[in-house]
Formats: sequence, structure tokens, C-alpha cells
Amino acid sequence: MARKQHRFDDKRFQVAGSKKLQLSKRSTAAGNELSGKSQGLETLAADVSALQEAQELLYASQTNSLLIILQGMDAAGKDGTIRHVMGAINPQGCRVTPFKAPNDLERQHHFLWRAMPHLPERGMISLFNRSYYEEVLVVRVHPDFLVPQRIPGLTLQPKSLQQLWRKRFAEIRAFEKSLSDHGTMVLKFFLHVSREEQKERLLERLTRPEKHWKFNPRDLEERALWPQYVKAFEEALSATSRNHAPWYVIPADNKWYARAAIADIIARKLESLKLRFPKVPEEDRQNFQAYADDLRKR
Amino acid sequence: MARKQHRFDDKRFQVAGSKKLQLSKRSTAAGNELSGKSQGLETLAADVSALQEAQELLYASQTNSLLIILQGMDAAGKDGTIRHVMGAINPQGCRVTPFKAPNDLERQHHFLWRAMPHLPERGMISLFNRSYYEEVLVVRVHPDFLVPQRIPGLTLQPKSLQQLWRKRFAEIRAFEKSLSDHGTMVLKFFLHVSREEQKERLLERLTRPEKHWKFNPRDLEERALWPQYVKAFEEALSATSRNHAPWYVIPADNKWYARAAIADIIARKLESLKLRFPKVPEEDRQNFQAYADDLRKR
Repeated sequence: MARKQHRFDDKRFQVAGSKKLQLSKRSTAAGNELSGKSQGLETLAADVSALQEAQELLYASQTNSLLIILQGMDAAGKDGTIRHVMGAINPQGCRVTPFKAPNDLERQHHFLWRAMPHLPERGMISLFNRSYYEEVLVVRVHPDFLVPQRIPGLTLQPKSLQQLWRKRFAEIRAFEKSLSDHGTMVLKFFLHVSREEQKERLLERLTRPEKHWKFNPRDLEERALWPQYVKAFEEALSATSRNHAPWYVIPADNKWYARAAIADIIARKLESLKLRFPKVPEEDRQNFQAYADDLRKR
Repeated sequence: MARKQHRFDDKRFQVAGSKKLQLSKRSTAAGNELSGKSQGLETLAADVSALQEAQELLYASQTNSLLIILQGMDAAGKDGTIRHVMGAINPQGCRVTPFKAPNDLERQHHFLWRAMPHLPERGMISLFNRSYYEEVLVVRVHPDFLVPQRIPGLTLQPKSLQQLWRKRFAEIRAFEKSLSDHGTMVLKFFLHVSREEQKERLLERLTRPEKHWKFNPRDLEERALWPQYVKAFEEALSATSRNHAPWYVIPADNKWYARAAIADIIARKLESLKLRFPKVPEEDRQNFQAYADDLRKR
């Protein structure tokens, strides 16, 4: 049975669409919902098990689906979150799609195009590791990435760009609203790490030989653009957080805290759908005895 | 560290492509590799953990990929195997694709077409829950399913059908050979349950209210065609089992035994690739100290 007690106040993490988000006012440190790592892991295990049950119901009831979007700076803990939160879910009910740099074909399409085949059909969970939001994040920090997209009328002048971001925000809002109306719950998580914590994690990749292969010199170049990224995240999250498709800013300097909080929010949101196992129609059920008798004979 | 001890003799389960498989001579009962359920679960846990490590290496090394095909009669335990064997693998490195009845578009394409987008790219594992093999299994038992495929020159006369199955076997062999040459390991598992065990499992769906929704009256119709399915499996497995793309007949009356055996074989086969974490080129590694010094300053 799903335990009813939830530890995290999701409203505290949620981004209000109406006012501008200031990431500097949001903590990156673990809150005091949990007394320490061991309670964190315990809570994570309980949340993951609530999530397993909720996923089974989602899969069985075939009425809704769930899209989870994970964003964050490099080394914010996206991969670990996927492994520890989604890892325990029945792999048959869950798909993970990584959004790396778009390929040549994808760049010639509208930026939402590449996401379409990966949306969750009824009963399914899709998790996007990064997402179409990169088009208002990394692309915003590097507007020259827009050149090969050959968007009619676009120049790289500030005014033209400003119009583009506004348009993209509106398109994302409309897209997610239509998903939500269609029965797809949309939950979006920003893993909020401090610049200091990112430094420690990148240093680990440089100094521990078994982590060497994970290091990419580009991460250092992007780190130098930290303030630009903060601004891009602040604007994108404010512009696209709505009650039907909320953004949550999750304190992520402590990995176990972030994972437990995310698992908790997802489980609770799924539970709020109040799904039920499909009811077999009475007339079908009346035949079950006959089916069983018949089966016993053969 | 992966434990080196493997319990299952995969050669015993493997189908020799050279001679005709007789399923009646293959046991459906758990073998004596394991003394009972508790040792079964223990072995499963060890195998799953070996599999986790092997998957991480596969993902990191980006040189190979793995296609797993799961087939079996209704209620043979495919879903449970996916949950318990693949469930512990990093969901970012693994995709599960169910092959239900083909849709209108898929029926108008060559039968291998629908599998293409779901093949595993380098580093990835794809599991097919049922697969293109249905086209020589369920379709063989119900040749009228071929009518909407409108295959030029095909009639439903025995000779014409016989040619079709032979052609499809050859096409599957060629397809899997090219996958294998391309670096995709292909492992195929037939979950072998007895007719008696299937009866028990279907009865459970009929008599336990919480399992009612899983019951499909069609399963009873298919059960009546058991001998035809046995024949179709025997021929398809014999015709398409090769050392580079072997079929394994897994005794599946005991769920924990089947799961442990499958996890064991997959882990061992991946280990046989002798993958290594990518070696960072010496010249890059020489820069790591400079990167780290630079990073510490910012």
C-alpha cells in the first residue's frame, strides 16, 4: 500500500508562473524535511515504492500518461536521478529519451518536432533527459546555434532574438497545455546545484581515473557561462511554469535529497489522479466462472 | 566486481540450428542448478548485479549493443521477466518495445520494417517483448492474418505458405547476421512453460479479482491451438538459431528459475565481449592537471 505521508512541500519548490523566478533566492542545499542521509535513503526507498505502485496503476488504467522533464546544469545529477528514481520502475512502462545536440535533420524541423515520437502514450511514463527546453537554454546562451536552423526572418540581433524566445515560450506553453488536456501529466524538474558543488563534481571527474571518461572539456567552457545560463533558466522556467505543467526547482547539492524529493512529488502527483484498476464489465465477469470451468477440463 | 561463477549451462538451453528442435524433449521444470526458491532469488540478485555492471560497461564503451528477444506462449512469464531482469538496469541504457498486433501502416510494410526504429544504437540494450518472430508464429497459426498484408503472388495454399515461411526464416537469418556483424549482439529467449502451468496461470487471472483485468478471452482460443504453436515455435527456432544469434529454450514453469537463468546468460554473454571503459588518450590526460588547477581557481 502506498504510504500516505509525504515529506516534501511541493508548493515550496514550484515555480509560480506569474512572477519572475530568482534562482539566487532558491536554496541548493538539502532542506530539513530529512535529518540526514540515512533518512534520505529511507524516504527515497519509500517514495520509489509508492512510485512503483502508482506506475502500475497508470499502466493498467490506460487513461493517462506522464511526461517528466529533467533539466539542470552539467553535473547537476540528472543521470543519477534517472538511475535511482526511474530505475526501480517497470521498464515496460517507462521510456527515457536523452536530448543531445539535434542532428542535421532535426535542425531543419520545428524545435518541438523531435520530441513527438517520444511522447508517452496512455499508460506510459516518458522521461526526457534534457528536452526541447534546450532550445531556450543552451541555444539562448549560444544564439549562433540558430544559424543552421534557417528560421525565416530571424537575425541574431537582440530584438529579433527576444521575439524568438517569447514565441518559443508561447509555443511550449501551448504544446504542454494540449498535452495536459489530452491526459498527459507534465512534470518538470530543475536540479538546482550551486556553482561550488558543480566545481567539486567536475573536479572528481578530473582527479578520479575511473571517472576520467566522463569528463568533457566543453563542460568547463559552459561553466564559464554560468550567469548567462542562470538568466536563461530563470526566464524559461518563469515563462512556462503553469499548474497543469509545473516547474519545480529542486535543491540538488545533496543527491539523495534531490532524488527523494523528486520521487515524492511524482508519486504524489500520480496518486492525485486517483486512478483505479480497470473494472471488468459485469457481463464479462459473469462468464469468468464458465471460462474457468472450461479451462479446468482442458 | 562481477562474480565469475555462473550456474547455468547455456549450451544446454541453446537451440542447435542444425537439427530440428523438439520442445517435448526440453524440460519446462526448474533444473537442479539451484536448490530451491531462496537460492534462486539469491542467484537472480547476483546475476542482476553482474548485469548492471555489464550494462554500464556496454554504455560507456559505445562499441556494441544488445538486442534481446523474448517469446513464449501466453502467460509464459514475459512481463515478469522484463520487470525482474531488466528492471534493475539503468533505464537510460535500456529500451523495452512491446510488439502487439501490427497496425494498418505496419501491415503494409515488410514485416521487419516496424522493428527498425527500435534497434539498439551503440551502448544500448533493446528488449523486444514479442518481436518480428510473431510473423512466423501467430501468423503461421492464423495464415488469414496475411491477407491484409497483400503480399504479391501469395495464396493461402500450403505450398505458397511453405515458401513464405522459408523465405521469412532466411530473411530473419540475414537480418540478424547483419546486426551481429554491425556489433549488435542478438540473444533470443523462448520461455518454455508446460500446458498445465499455463492453465494454472490463466485460472489465476480468472479466479483472483485483482487479476481479472489481465484476462483476455482470446487467450483461451489460442490455448486450444497449443499443438500448432508448438510446431511453429519448433520450426522457427530451429531455422533461426545460430551461434551469432542463438535461441535459448528456458524452462519457465518456475518463474524465479527462468529469470535467474536469463539474467545469467545475458550477463555472461556481455562479459564475453571483454569490454573496457574508454581509455582517455594520453595527451588529453596530460591536460587534466591543468584543467583541475584552472577549475579550482574559479
